[in-house]
Amino acid sequence: MGRLVECIPNFSEGRRPQVLEALASAVRNTPGVTLLDMESDKDHNRSVMTFIGEPEAVVRAVLAAASKAVELIDMEQHRGEHPRLGAVDVVPFVPVSGVSMEECVELARRVGRELWERLRLPVYFYEEAATSPSRRNLPEVRKGEYEGRKNDIKRPEWRPDVGEPAMHPTAGAVIVGARFPLIAFNVNLRTTELDIAKRIAKKVREKDGGLPAVRALGFELKDRGMVQVSMNLVNYHKTGIAAAFEAVRAEADRANVAVAGSEIVGLVPLEALTDCASRFLSLENFKATQVLESRLQG
Amino acid sequence: MGRLVECIPNFSEGRRPQVLEALASAVRNTPGVTLLDMESDKDHNRSVMTFIGEPEAVVRAVLAAASKAVELIDMEQHRGEHPRLGAVDVVPFVPVSGVSMEECVELARRVGRELWERLRLPVYFYEEAATSPSRRNLPEVRKGEYEGRKNDIKRPEWRPDVGEPAMHPTAGAVIVGARFPLIAFNVNLRTTELDIAKRIAKKVREKDGGLPAVRALGFELKDRGMVQVSMNLVNYHKTGIAAAFEAVRAEADRANVAVAGSEIVGLVPLEALTDCASRFLSLENFKATQVLESRLQG
Repeated sequence: MGRLVECIPNFSEGRRPQVLEALASAVRNTPGVTLLDMESDKDHNRSVMTFIGEPEAVVRAVLAAASKAVELIDMEQHRGEHPRLGAVDVVPFVPVSGVSMEECVELARRVGRELWERLRLPVYFYEEAATSPSRRNLPEVRKGEYEGRKNDIKRPEWRPDVGEPAMHPTAGAVIVGARFPLIAFNVNLRTTELDIAKRIAKKVREKDGGLPAVRALGFELKDRGMVQVSMNLVNYHKTGIAAAFEAVRAEADRANVAVAGSEIVGLVPLEALTDCASRFLSLENFKATQVLESRLQG
Repeated sequence: MGRLVECIPNFSEGRRPQVLEALASAVRNTPGVTLLDMESDKDHNRSVMTFIGEPEAVVRAVLAAASKAVELIDMEQHRGEHPRLGAVDVVPFVPVSGVSMEECVELARRVGRELWERLRLPVYFYEEAATSPSRRNLPEVRKGEYEGRKNDIKRPEWRPDVGEPAMHPTAGAVIVGARFPLIAFNVNLRTTELDIAKRIAKKVREKDGGLPAVRALGFELKDRGMVQVSMNLVNYHKTGIAAAFEAVRAEADRANVAVAGSEIVGLVPLEALTDCASRFLSLENFKATQVLESRLQG
């Protein structure tokens, strides 16, 4: 399977089909890259693309799509509900297999420099690629949005990490970074008491002193007569699926509530599943290369 | 990842490097196939090759290697400890992903016909591809070996499934079939009493009324001061890794012995691991296509 990076660029366009097609084509036409998904939201006037490939191919694909975005999106005309700084708004790189977080940070930095040199986009680095703690958090970096940043960019605290302190006249600025894959993992409980789900969510989430790299909320599943602890595991190396499940089950036990089941929403890296099996089985010395499918070339 | 079949042909040659290289090259030079492993045993004078690919590519690879084997191996000269019927002794097809057992049986039948038509090898079908219950079991089909079968092949009970009832003058006969992937899975117990491992093995294996499609033996791990229940899961759809683990753990609990850990030896299909995680997590509606790596093209 080789070295694999995921890239999930967000573009400030969710309405014009021809522009969306041009962005998707730029990725599809890059050899060595697989476009997994593209979701556009008309109210947000925004699209999120997901693609994977070897690091070099991913760099080529994202630069091709960014170039199209700068050509076809005018932030002076852009309206939409979702906060944004530029035409290519956010570009996160995610290590999937055979690639370290350090390499993804390096990739983000390199792509940041290229975006400035080729397209004259000022660049902010965020999350694992951030150059200071104040720039780790995406909503913080996006404060004031495109309109506000046109002035703020001259202030020392909003000086870009790469490029001149001036917004691109039509494409604004870009936020580039590296992060771990996010796993959306829910545990359903056999009770209709929403409070129990909320209490367990509070207990297990990092914000309130729970498990590291876990975000959690309690929801009602009205149709099923159940409640749900809905989690985002933002770094499964810190807290994996099995540990999150066991923590919720322990709290449910304490509340005398049974676990009805769990669900993984969307994509999950193979390693997060093998880690999970490993933990439940107390597996010794298991390597991802033992998975038959991982041996495929290319 | 697409549709994936594994093929593990056994050849009656384990000594002459040039012959082994010719067999390996026949597979390596077939586009769309990945040679995962080739193990040769000098005492057995026998080699086992493992390769994977899309069904059509796997058929081409195994026919190319079989053609080389017929050309270069003379069963009249062959001596070795391992029982065998021919130069290409056994050809099992194993469904790995996106391919059903029925398709693998179809593949085995087709390759059987081709081996007779192109190379004049009489063919027996075994395991899931067997044409009668008496031919399911490989050691049964191989009874009498190359030397004995030269006469027996004329008897009605040893009539080949494809081809004339006469051995190929230098390459003998070939046994072609389909089977599920075999998973070698061991559970280690914190005790030095070998009897406990043996008793648990007997309890969990199919032969003695235990779990379906499970073979098991008890071993001593002298260096580690432990014992081991060593299992072969021959159809993980019937008994998976999680179920085998839980059965051994339940028996160990009953004997007041702790489980020290477990190990998967060699390759394991992705689905067997996701099944395992699914069971432990009571996962709802999980699909193998949710694994990020499974989305790769080619």
